[in-house]
Amino acid sequence: MLDRLCIIGVGLIGGSVALAARSKGLAREIVGVDRDPGTLRQAKALGAIDVGFQTAAEGVYKADGVVIATPVGKVQAVFEALAPVWSTQAFYTDVGSTKTNVVRAAEHVFGKMPANFVPAHPIAGRELSGVEAALGDLFESKRLILTPVPETDVRMLERVRGFWQALGAEVHDMSVTHHDHVLAATSHLPHVVAYALTHLLGRKDEKDEIFQYAAGGFKDFTRIASSDADMWADICLANAAEITALLRRFEGELHDFGHLLEGGDRSAILHYFAEARSARQRFLDRYRDTS
Amino acid sequence: MLDRLCIIGVGLIGGSVALAARSKGLAREIVGVDRDPGTLRQAKALGAIDVGFQTAAEGVYKADGVVIATPVGKVQAVFEALAPVWSTQAFYTDVGSTKTNVVRAAEHVFGKMPANFVPAHPIAGRELSGVEAALGDLFESKRLILTPVPETDVRMLERVRGFWQALGAEVHDMSVTHHDHVLAATSHLPHVVAYALTHLLGRKDEKDEIFQYAAGGFKDFTRIASSDADMWADICLANAAEITALLRRFEGELHDFGHLLEGGDRSAILHYFAEARSARQRFLDRYRDTS
Repeated sequence: MLDRLCIIGVGLIGGSVALAARSKGLAREIVGVDRDPGTLRQAKALGAIDVGFQTAAEGVYKADGVVIATPVGKVQAVFEALAPVWSTQAFYTDVGSTKTNVVRAAEHVFGKMPANFVPAHPIAGRELSGVEAALGDLFESKRLILTPVPETDVRMLERVRGFWQALGAEVHDMSVTHHDHVLAATSHLPHVVAYALTHLLGRKDEKDEIFQYAAGGFKDFTRIASSDADMWADICLANAAEITALLRRFEGELHDFGHLLEGGDRSAILHYFAEARSARQRFLDRYRDTS
Repeated sequence: MLDRLCIIGVGLIGGSVALAARSKGLAREIVGVDRDPGTLRQAKALGAIDVGFQTAAEGVYKADGVVIATPVGKVQAVFEALAPVWSTQAFYTDVGSTKTNVVRAAEHVFGKMPANFVPAHPIAGRELSGVEAALGDLFESKRLILTPVPETDVRMLERVRGFWQALGAEVHDMSVTHHDHVLAATSHLPHVVAYALTHLLGRKDEKDEIFQYAAGGFKDFTRIASSDADMWADICLANAAEITALLRRFEGELHDFGHLLEGGDRSAILHYFAEARSARQRFLDRYRDTS
């Protein structure tokens, strides 16, 4: 059990870490750090944190576990705030959806990756944001990727692994670059595509009022375009190279499908759709394992 | 009340028409037509139809209302089967997701659009298919588009409107070409994009096993890629010109976004995402009206 768990950034994910740690009894005291005092009040009212501070340096005082749960664009500033008060005894982990940029930020601030910072990415989220959307079971049976680096202390790695497992997550290890490559495909590209489609159709709706003739499938398809725009701007910039490469491939995919359609070859189109359908079935079979 | 309602094609939509007509007491007798005797048995067992036939000519005997609910690719063959037994007293309607091809097929078979055939498209569906997925309330408070043509008899138009309204639908009128233009955007393009994305990532999964690291958002986003491949091949071919034009625009949209990303202009990316998010909110506000 931790004496003092500090969560920096008490939004959807940070708040959910707090609620989960609370309900699993993982920490004697939970401290929240957020620049917004209203968020800290709300987190206290929800029972997520015991006490709140507006600066990371205050919040981490005597903490033996620290979770950085700010948007990925803010991580470097958090490292800068933590550097003067960095403890070699505590473990540090984060929740960023991109990992190369987090590791680079740490290397930039500390000169090299601190041995007790273990980057993490819980594959869990909601299209809602803010501590009011936090759930104590958000990580339950969800996959979580740890991306240790050569500098990572093995005991710290195991402590962080144990922490996330205790929150209910199924923990996998992966290299930093492989993480960003995989997540560009499974998460970042789909978000960009959903945003782009909704953007295109939104302009069409202004002219033609098409949205009133959209069905439930459209609602599901575009749900992720309701994700937090600020957070996703950071994620896209942090993983821009991987996302751009995949975007080019996807443009090619659409272009090829357009040719199939213009060619009017029904059996080729049917085959294409059937392949996609069976790929999704394969995804569902795996997804069901943990959800 | 109808004496005899005949439903040609007893799948998800045809079966739902039957169940809804039954529960609303719209017909003394409901006849199903399907080439598959197993489907007819199942439809009878579900209480959707009273009697089943394997040919349209048998099924429409003495029917005063006929709903053509086969996949859009089969509509011309249905018209050909109905031509020798066409009644001028009954109303005919269909449920096709594309309308230009249905009207063309009717013109081809009958020389001109029959005055008592009123094309319809209920904006309702599920990613499941088959009569076993049919729901008696599938059309309840859902929009339904009628695309009458100059040849359409006004009294028949009103009878068909009344029929669909009695099934619970909110009926709108639209021209044939405007329907296909609007639905290409709200339904056909999203389906093609979901199929194409799932197709691309499916191949990536074969190599890199990425699907196990996909989250709930991916599940929603790709749900429509589990739609019936056969039906969607027909829809895409029937509305190929509109879909291809939109695909080209969407490729351009992705290309432009790729430039934004490469340029690294955070405020432009944020603005782009925020616009998409507010467009989706506008969609949800309208969608909530009827769902």
